[in-house]
Amino acid sequence: MSITIFTDRISITTKTGLDIVNITSRLTDSLKKSKIINGSLNATVIGSTSSVTTIEFEPGVVNDLKKAITRFAPPDIEYDHEKAWHDGNGHSHVQAALLGPSIALPVRDGHLTLGTWQQAVIINHDNRARERVVDITIIGTA
Amino acid sequence: MSITIFTDRISITTKTGLDIVNITSRLTDSLKKSKIINGSLNATVIGSTSSVTTIEFEPGVVNDLKKAITRFAPPDIEYDHEKAWHDGNGHSHVQAALLGPSIALPVRDGHLTLGTWQQAVIINHDNRARERVVDITIIGTA
Amino acid sequence: MSITIFTDRISITTKTGLDIVNITSRLTDSLKKSKIINGSLNATVIGSTSSVTTIEFEPGVVNDLKKAITRFAPPDIEYDHEKAWHDGNGHSHVQAALLGPSIALPVRDGHLTLGTWQQAVIINHDNRARERVVDITIIGTA
Repeated sequence: MSITIFTDRISITTKTGLDIVNITSRLTDSLKKSKIINGSLNATVIGSTSSVTTIEFEPGVVNDLKKAITRFAPPDIEYDHEKAWHDGNGHSHVQAALLGPSIALPVRDGHLTLGTWQQAVIINHDNRARERVVDITIIGTA
Repeated sequence: MSITIFTDRISITTKTGLDIVNITSRLTDSLKKSKIINGSLNATVIGSTSSVTTIEFEPGVVNDLKKAITRFAPPDIEYDHEKAWHDGNGHSHVQAALLGPSIALPVRDGHLTLGTWQQAVIINHDNRARERVVDITIIGTA
Repeated sequence: MSITIFTDRISITTKTGLDIVNITSRLTDSLKKSKIINGSLNATVIGSTSSVTTIEFEPGVVNDLKKAITRFAPPDIEYDHEKAWHDGNGHSHVQAALLGPSIALPVRDGHLTLGTWQQAVIINHDNRARERVVDITIIGTA
């Protein structure tokens, strides 16, 4: 029952933000490849205008979450980031920092123990379409 | 000094949300059972209307946090989730996604190195009382 | 290819909150000491008025994030925490709980796979300068 580690990297095409993409099946694919049956899976998105969380992935919740994120960091207020960089994504940085880049999910009997209505998602907050990279680390017993 | 892994599942009775419950002693119990003295403990709540974080668990902060969560996703605004599902918990989904489902806590000398005034909590955001399940994964040296 | 674990503790001087401090080089130092080349690094801040996340660490984004955090938990509204404790940091507790105490970062080829414009930061939300402690746990193969 020795501990092993498996690392994987997935790439996800996202549209101009806010775009919320279900990555659960991608994580499950990595988990199968790892052959780890008991442990923990970390998923971390690379980049400062993207985030990771879990939601019930249905169109209503997806829209509601976009609206809430837009309320707490609207694109149409002034951002100091703009004054220096003029790339129009000041709000994207703030939104991503508040949501955070990583989640830890339990692995039991070879499965992620997400709830029935709970899916892992990445969010592209950037004001342009981005190819997003998520690094996956699974640690546990095979 | 070989690495071991210990997994546990705890069940927590929560009231209609927002309900914030201190789970520190439950995590400590799992840690004792694991006999792991140096490593990391991941706690992840199952379900899309619940979240995990740390706070100073005293009645004032608990109330203040509830008010802040209610400000950024109030129950009394319109949610697209409602239009399809009519279960009254659109705000619960948004709140839980923003807080996030997991935390990683350090284990040193057989103890969680939380601050003196820092406790691990789960939050039930749902509009009904729920029995909440938290999966605990502890990885480290025994 | 056996798994090892490395633990470290760093101390960071922070000013009266909101203060956002780049800790990336400190994490990288720990990673070098660990000699782990493939795995995962957890960073968790101790205390209930501090948080950890990743941002593009440039003065504009730092200011923008401070403003957003202040919007969702302003210091100048009423907090129940104050009624009992009178220490003026009710907003600090709420802010820290929403951001969360921990992140998990991937380790590949002996490096953190952060984005080019992505840095790990701790945030002091407290209304006084604090020496902040971050516990680092790195698990992986050396």
